[in-house]
Amino acid sequence: MKPELKIFKIGGGIIDSEADLLEFVRLFSEVSGPKILVHGGGKGASEMMANLGIAPRMINGRRITDAATLEIVTMFYAGKTNKQLVAALQSRDVNALGLSGADGNVIQATKRPVRDVDYGFVGDLSEASVNSTLIHQFLEMGLTPVFCAINHDGHGQLLNTNADTIAASVAKALSAKYAVALHFCFEKRGVLTDVTDDKSVIAKINLADYAELKESGIIADGMLPKLENAFDALQFGVDKVIIEHALYINEVLKTTLCLN
Amino acid sequence: MKPELKIFKIGGGIIDSEADLLEFVRLFSEVSGPKILVHGGGKGASEMMANLGIAPRMINGRRITDAATLEIVTMFYAGKTNKQLVAALQSRDVNALGLSGADGNVIQATKRPVRDVDYGFVGDLSEASVNSTLIHQFLEMGLTPVFCAINHDGHGQLLNTNADTIAASVAKALSAKYAVALHFCFEKRGVLTDVTDDKSVIAKINLADYAELKESGIIADGMLPKLENAFDALQFGVDKVIIEHALYINEVLKTTLCLN
Repeated sequence: MKPELKIFKIGGGIIDSEADLLEFVRLFSEVSGPKILVHGGGKGASEMMANLGIAPRMINGRRITDAATLEIVTMFYAGKTNKQLVAALQSRDVNALGLSGADGNVIQATKRPVRDVDYGFVGDLSEASVNSTLIHQFLEMGLTPVFCAINHDGHGQLLNTNADTIAASVAKALSAKYAVALHFCFEKRGVLTDVTDDKSVIAKINLADYAELKESGIIADGMLPKLENAFDALQFGVDKVIIEHALYINEVLKTTLCLN
Repeated sequence: MKPELKIFKIGGGIIDSEADLLEFVRLFSEVSGPKILVHGGGKGASEMMANLGIAPRMINGRRITDAATLEIVTMFYAGKTNKQLVAALQSRDVNALGLSGADGNVIQATKRPVRDVDYGFVGDLSEASVNSTLIHQFLEMGLTPVFCAINHDGHGQLLNTNADTIAASVAKALSAKYAVALHFCFEKRGVLTDVTDDKSVIAKINLADYAELKESGIIADGMLPKLENAFDALQFGVDKVIIEHALYINEVLKTTLCLN
């Protein structure tokens, strides 16, 4: 039987509040066994850009990662957020190791090709992107990798990648060696039938349920890409995907996704 | 016989010029055997603080690392500079691993005690600060650690430490396992008898020479703390210290320090 590995992804909502972030760190430090943390960015990068007079470039509602943006997000994600998280985890006896994809060449991305839109320095991942051997070695050494959303292309260029995508890609790559539970943490207790009611969490969703929930419109908007990512991970060997509130990872109320 | 280990420290002068930094990366990639890079910061952090309207706080000509300063230097040193260096090294087939002291708890510092002056979030190092076992493991894995000047106190607080001090402390800690050559790189070809003449490099300085050069005033100002650090490292087991130009590390013109 494969050993268990828990991968947690946290996003901006939790990162923007120092108190919430420290509470998550406390809860995460109590998670047993080998584990990995993947974090997105918070509002800090956008605020700093505004303070520096750098206007965000948007095309079709999507942010373009130009050189100035990449510099700021690298500083925030790989510098400030990553190192604050690592230091906080160390204070809780989690031997955290902060990583961008460039470190140890642990994730190598490809700059998104320009078709209709040039998204700038955005890194796409493929099956071969993740160096699972090195991550496995780090885990065997008792280290807890903490990934920010900055990767590189192997030719000296840093790239910004969606943190959900990093979490899913790392989970898929490590599923050959581990029974991986991938935890997407956000500001709700799970997938809700009624977004205004935090207690309306759907405990289990399989592929057939998902099709129905999508059809009926119960699952919509921002939850759709998250669940697409999740089912993709399950189809590529990840054992289970859990969608839960970052501040209640130790409680039972959450959504578990599975294929059948 | 102990295996050789080369530790290079580069400072702000080289970091501020992208072309120079990439040339150093090229030269460093050609250095054989296990190696470590320690980098300081450049002018970028101060420039960003000025752009954000954060005035540097100075006491007796020394910069105070207050919370706002620490945040910016963490972003610059651990984020921008460290990750750009790591990505550039990866493009030259050096398997670089960027590290703050918090990562893997590899360097634990102590906040400088407040006596006459509160220097703020500045981390001092002691003999026990450096986790040489983990650094050795990284080297054995074929990784090249790249240290920025950000450390932590083990209680969740990040701290800023002088990069020369980090290089010397890492060198001393690893001298139990390795014959360490510590290379301080800067913008001169070595210790000069005449600062206006780059060819006036003193090839070798031992402790007795150093006392004489200090006495005669040939070595003065900024070179003094650098050499104090260097001879301290030699006295605590480092094999040799080399002072050289960051862009000419492959040439013979340089200053080698030794005890006798």
